[in-house]
Amino acid sequence: MERITSVSNNQIKDANNLKLKKFRKEKELFFVEGLRTVEEAVNYGLVRKVFYTVTSDVRTISVIDKAAANGADLYEVDTKVMEKLSDTKEPQGIIAIADIPKVTMNNFGKVLAKVVSSKGKDFANASVVVVDRIQDPGNLGSIIRAADAAGALGIVLLNGTVDAFAPKVVRASMGSLFHLPIVSDVNEVDCLAWCKSEGYKTLVTCLDGASDLYKTNLDEKLAIVMGNEANGISETLLEKADLKAFIPMLGSAESLNVGVATGVILYESLRQRQYKK
Amino acid sequence: MERITSVSNNQIKDANNLKLKKFRKEKELFFVEGLRTVEEAVNYGLVRKVFYTVTSDVRTISVIDKAAANGADLYEVDTKVMEKLSDTKEPQGIIAIADIPKVTMNNFGKVLAKVVSSKGKDFANASVVVVDRIQDPGNLGSIIRAADAAGALGIVLLNGTVDAFAPKVVRASMGSLFHLPIVSDVNEVDCLAWCKSEGYKTLVTCLDGASDLYKTNLDEKLAIVMGNEANGISETLLEKADLKAFIPMLGSAESLNVGVATGVILYESLRQRQYKK
Repeated sequence: MERITSVSNNQIKDANNLKLKKFRKEKELFFVEGLRTVEEAVNYGLVRKVFYTVTSDVRTISVIDKAAANGADLYEVDTKVMEKLSDTKEPQGIIAIADIPKVTMNNFGKVLAKVVSSKGKDFANASVVVVDRIQDPGNLGSIIRAADAAGALGIVLLNGTVDAFAPKVVRASMGSLFHLPIVSDVNEVDCLAWCKSEGYKTLVTCLDGASDLYKTNLDEKLAIVMGNEANGISETLLEKADLKAFIPMLGSAESLNVGVATGVILYESLRQRQYKK
Repeated sequence: MERITSVSNNQIKDANNLKLKKFRKEKELFFVEGLRTVEEAVNYGLVRKVFYTVTSDVRTISVIDKAAANGADLYEVDTKVMEKLSDTKEPQGIIAIADIPKVTMNNFGKVLAKVVSSKGKDFANASVVVVDRIQDPGNLGSIIRAADAAGALGIVLLNGTVDAFAPKVVRASMGSLFHLPIVSDVNEVDCLAWCKSEGYKTLVTCLDGASDLYKTNLDEKLAIVMGNEANGISETLLEKADLKAFIPMLGSAESLNVGVATGVILYESLRQRQYKK
């Protein structure tokens, strides 16, 4: 364990740099803040460094100990240094640096097959979620969390989507980022080719030529595409979609928040697969 | 129409003050930003003032004209004044000041009866949403939007919930704030008494003694209670609940974002009422 009391210490600078995508890409590391999220990072075995302020909290101490046992370097920092490092207004006093898992479209199929074989046959026709240029970190975090909760197998982030390993997305995902494989910076054409070859039908939400979600058969291997907050799903993805559905709007709202819409679709698909029979 | 070029103009100060709850309570007015949201405020007849920068955008001009026709005062401001007034990083160039609708638990039943009679029998056993100390403005906005979309009749905000008329909530609701009645600052005991007298069964999400949402009969007049992001639903509301359900968690997530959870529950309730038969 090393003690750090200077905000200009190089470890602090390096950690702070990881708030920027450029440095995350270069180092293949990311910045994880908050007890619950660091705990999940430690459980999933990705943690290289832990920065913390002195604490008597049993759960925090146990997380730090487990990280150390897994080979992470520990840095005890003072409050001033923690404030410098933290990306939040009220730091919880624990920050980790973790490896960005290496998943690409080339090994995604294999990774998903492993997930299915470890989780059992209920997951055999579970969905993947394809994210098309979502911009808001909170929305992407909610989507990752919903995908995890509803038993989706993995997530594909198309080019132009906010980085899943940005601090705000990591926090909003509440640890779910560690629970399922995420492929970043994917070209939409490559994604469509992958879906076809792996037997996933793409489902888009739109109005033109779409059927009511609750009258659509979702008991299939689906790639559920969620589009940009303002502009929706790209022309190409709309054109090539296997299934088009709309979420019924009973009141006067034009649409749902995209995280909410993802949850509604994933859970209706889950219901049709597992509760209908 | 008046032209304002000084950031210290009293109209600008008064409008800016409405970003604070204290002044909203005192004046019974709130601050509405962005074209889509101002448009809805104008459509629902609540707008007193419109501040805008010179524009050639047809939709914006039509909104301004309609506001004026309804008796709103118009203020053309320069970019510097708009920046001072705006609550966003990239102002859309239109801000309105609108009346806070007066709905209380005393007239809520009557207001809902009117909504049902205007919308038709499909809404006769629609839900209301009860919000218990949600803190994040984006979450409350998503909840209001989901409630509107899924055809909920109205919303009750219990004491300690973020103010629905705060600028960030108004923006996140994407206009839905204007589409259904919202009662603020309600005591939980009064809310429970109201639910009982109006025949709404309270539904809480929790784990202890709860049944799977997809095996729970939701084809009832429900008051769907959504709890605080960190601490969940209050002890009293849990104890007194008529129905307890949990959203199944297939993966390793502990829970959903509260806006997502609201959408999932509201849409499952809608499905059971309108699509099952």
